[in-house]
Amino acid sequence: MTFEAAFSSGPDGFRRGGRRRNLKTSERIARDIAAYIVDARLPEGARLPREKEMLDMLGVGRMTLREGLRLLETQGVIDIRSGAHGGPVVRRPQPEDLAGSLTLLLQFHAASLADVMLARQALEPVVARLAAEHVTDAQLEALAETVDLMRRDAGSQDVFRRENERFHQLVAEAAGSVTLRVFSDTLKTIASGEEVGIEYRPEHHVAVAKAHERILSALRRRRPREAEKAMADHLAEAADYWQRRYPDLWARSVRWVQS
Amino acid sequence: MTFEAAFSSGPDGFRRGGRRRNLKTSERIARDIAAYIVDARLPEGARLPREKEMLDMLGVGRMTLREGLRLLETQGVIDIRSGAHGGPVVRRPQPEDLAGSLTLLLQFHAASLADVMLARQALEPVVARLAAEHVTDAQLEALAETVDLMRRDAGSQDVFRRENERFHQLVAEAAGSVTLRVFSDTLKTIASGEEVGIEYRPEHHVAVAKAHERILSALRRRRPREAEKAMADHLAEAADYWQRRYPDLWARSVRWVQS
Repeated sequence: MTFEAAFSSGPDGFRRGGRRRNLKTSERIARDIAAYIVDARLPEGARLPREKEMLDMLGVGRMTLREGLRLLETQGVIDIRSGAHGGPVVRRPQPEDLAGSLTLLLQFHAASLADVMLARQALEPVVARLAAEHVTDAQLEALAETVDLMRRDAGSQDVFRRENERFHQLVAEAAGSVTLRVFSDTLKTIASGEEVGIEYRPEHHVAVAKAHERILSALRRRRPREAEKAMADHLAEAADYWQRRYPDLWARSVRWVQS
Repeated sequence: MTFEAAFSSGPDGFRRGGRRRNLKTSERIARDIAAYIVDARLPEGARLPREKEMLDMLGVGRMTLREGLRLLETQGVIDIRSGAHGGPVVRRPQPEDLAGSLTLLLQFHAASLADVMLARQALEPVVARLAAEHVTDAQLEALAETVDLMRRDAGSQDVFRRENERFHQLVAEAAGSVTLRVFSDTLKTIASGEEVGIEYRPEHHVAVAKAHERILSALRRRRPREAEKAMADHLAEAADYWQRRYPDLWARSVRWVQS
């Protein structure tokens, strides 16, 4: 599909007006450019047409187009590069891009770290249960690797942080729902202890590696209820540790520090 | 706290630089204005200081400030009113504001309505379980009212839509986690059947009212597992109906139509 075709008409093209009448023009432009990128299967790094071309196609003013592009940038859909060879370049929005919006919302509703952790405790065990039903052999292998790495390098904060994140991410991927993966990754971004200043000692690294191993074992034997229980226990332990050792952080409202 | 104090220094004030060095200036400005609104407890409808005052305080250019304000507008933090007496006015971001960002992200990851519904099926039963532990008498009363209204006016699409939404919202509120409420409301916004063109007939209205009554009964008797099961059954029925009657909608990737 050409850029021109995408913005002329048809079910996948330019839906002038749309359902919500109060949509701002710049938001409509942003939405339509996003739909174009998806429908035309533009890969990451692809350039959008030049500004003049887009202005002609979309029939809007330069300020409106720029506002729409800026909106897409804040949503992680494009990067706007500066310089002579700059301009909008396609990205793929990631869960981290949502984490900023969610944190902002939570900040306004005075949600504490305890609240976010309660949500993780509600969500991740179900995710683990679904993972036990859908996990592939390749995913099991990758999970085994992260457990091994975490145990082998117990004591290294960097390895711990990376492999901890990777483990939970892999479980969420194995659950087979993009939506759940996005939620789970977003919560992890907000409520990962390290981000807010929680430190783990080497003996904790070993304990976490063991907890991960227990979850992995349930996944390997495809036991949904066991995986659910193992993940619930793992998060309950983490929540308990945070609450005891970092009561101030625990009760404090989350703040928007992420872009 | 005065506007000036908020933007000078201190733990709640202007954190120049911050942890992430690649944060754009306009994003930093947006974040700091958001923190100011929360810390100063500005109510909805309150006006932000005039542009000139903000420029002086923040020490940035006019374009940067406007970009930051626009960003806050897309996040639902402020409304920018036009006209002689216009300018930025405080709002409180709502889950609906997040729904747009989430839908956009899901669109890029080719998530189907089935995928979103699976996430609802994973999340809402847990939410109902927590609600059975935390629900207040006032919330039970409000829930009973929505069930009564839906049953009494079975056949009215408007009543059904409103009371259906209200019921699920009240259950999410009763769970006692802001984060879970945001997720649950966001998913409902994306995966409410009506939004995507699914229609319910009067006999369905009665069936849904009955399902809601069963959930309410478990909440009233504070039986977490029963509430979880009743909610899971309710959503499984809905998912089954959608899949059978609207197979195309079911398999189609969600699209960003919301602002």
